[in-house]
Amino acid sequence: MPKGAPVAVATWEFGLEAARAAGEVLAGGGNALDAVERGINVAELDPEVTNVGYGGLPNAAGEVELDAAVMDGTGLRSGSVAALRHIRCPLSVARRVLEDGRHAMLVGAGALRFALDNGFPEEELLTEAAAERWRQWQEEGPQGHDTIGMIALDAGGGLAAGCSTSGLAWKLPGRVGDSPLVGAGLYADGAAGAAVATGVGEEIIRFCAAFLAVELMRGGAGPAEACAEVIRRARDRRTADVDAPVSLLAVSPDGRVGAGTTRESFPYAVWTSGEAGLLQASG
Amino acid sequence: MPKGAPVAVATWEFGLEAARAAGEVLAGGGNALDAVERGINVAELDPEVTNVGYGGLPNAAGEVELDAAVMDGTGLRSGSVAALRHIRCPLSVARRVLEDGRHAMLVGAGALRFALDNGFPEEELLTEAAAERWRQWQEEGPQGHDTIGMIALDAGGGLAAGCSTSGLAWKLPGRVGDSPLVGAGLYADGAAGAAVATGVGEEIIRFCAAFLAVELMRGGAGPAEACAEVIRRARDRRTADVDAPVSLLAVSPDGRVGAGTTRESFPYAVWTSGEAGLLQASG
Repeated sequence: MPKGAPVAVATWEFGLEAARAAGEVLAGGGNALDAVERGINVAELDPEVTNVGYGGLPNAAGEVELDAAVMDGTGLRSGSVAALRHIRCPLSVARRVLEDGRHAMLVGAGALRFALDNGFPEEELLTEAAAERWRQWQEEGPQGHDTIGMIALDAGGGLAAGCSTSGLAWKLPGRVGDSPLVGAGLYADGAAGAAVATGVGEEIIRFCAAFLAVELMRGGAGPAEACAEVIRRARDRRTADVDAPVSLLAVSPDGRVGAGTTRESFPYAVWTSGEAGLLQASG
Repeated sequence: MPKGAPVAVATWEFGLEAARAAGEVLAGGGNALDAVERGINVAELDPEVTNVGYGGLPNAAGEVELDAAVMDGTGLRSGSVAALRHIRCPLSVARRVLEDGRHAMLVGAGALRFALDNGFPEEELLTEAAAERWRQWQEEGPQGHDTIGMIALDAGGGLAAGCSTSGLAWKLPGRVGDSPLVGAGLYADGAAGAAVATGVGEEIIRFCAAFLAVELMRGGAGPAEACAEVIRRARDRRTADVDAPVSLLAVSPDGRVGAGTTRESFPYAVWTSGEAGLLQASG
């Protein structure tokens, strides 16, 4: 396992605070899995981030349903939850699924039962602001689909990836996108690299974007090249009838960072050597 | 798209009837997606098949929760349901999710709501025989994890793959395995090939077995070679503490069939040229 300077990356502008929080964990000698969890928790708990955790926009029935997953690149172990209600930090429940070790993914009422059995408090996730936007839904039309996706590389060479989202706003109840799906929204293999995706999950699922990026790195591509190739495939195989943007981030085992997008621009946050900043990929 | 003799394959001995039913659809000029649905419905409706659909073994709470997915290799479109209760043929609900087109995956109560809204009847899935085995659970210990996985290639070169399962017997409520996950349990791309996996889902999810097999075929491997390579990776990266068998089937766009397994033997059914028969892969 190569050892070098720790790195944390996160999707979107709101990922800056998450990358900074993850960076603090890494700078203190913490491992990649803890860094991803801490960083994503910051976005989950922030009601101003309307597509992740508490304050996330609800589904068509006015219920907030959350999806999250985390993968440890050391043992290829993962934990995932989907359509989880009433829990502010679904990434931490996903982490519990991983540590528990019996299963890799829990959904719906079973996921909530598992969370409550593990001591997570049951809370209302729908903020007044999100409820008001749901009431105005008819005028607004379709809404965003941003996810917090994070990758951390620790000083010991450990790689981890995580995603957390409230999913497509006004989705059908029970809808699951790419974020909690190992291979689609996230993948981490300490021997090859890690990747996370964000955008329209239905599009990302079609070609297992995160796993494909990691396999390309395993085959010798750098992270930027791997992202470019995944974006090329997304463009080539795009369904003609939908505008379905896809963006992704990748980190190699030696700490290089790549990004790709089908959008005009895709902002992302990078923390390294004690500094966090925003970068842009363009499509 | 190459055009040749149609082929249908299915996992396990009980896949023989499914392969035969799919073969009838293909022989009548039907397409691959219809063949997969028809074949898998046969297993779902058979109460003697205790790991799929009606008559499947329940979860730890004594509830039958079903997972299924189907993927059309022509447009890379998929539909998936997980933790679905009270519907005998979850593969057909997954097909409706695909046709509906809004989402790729629905789980739990939302998946049931979607099924009922689409006219599927609500039924009791727990047979007296399955309930009796659940009551004897403590004495029996862990139970099977077999899935019906199918691939069909139609005369027009169309490829489709599908999976359906009641999952690991005595699983935690809400547990989702590889079967409804595009990339893990199934993947189909008319340009590269199709694959389905069966075994312990938590293990299959770790390395996106079906997508990996298809990517290897895209890179030039034959289906047998692709399966062998996936099995090699499953062995290399196996978690030390569990006995977690993995088996898979693959079909190339020109109709060659491959199989691989970490087990001593893995029986599977093949229909071609009007004849269905059982074959064995060995590990």
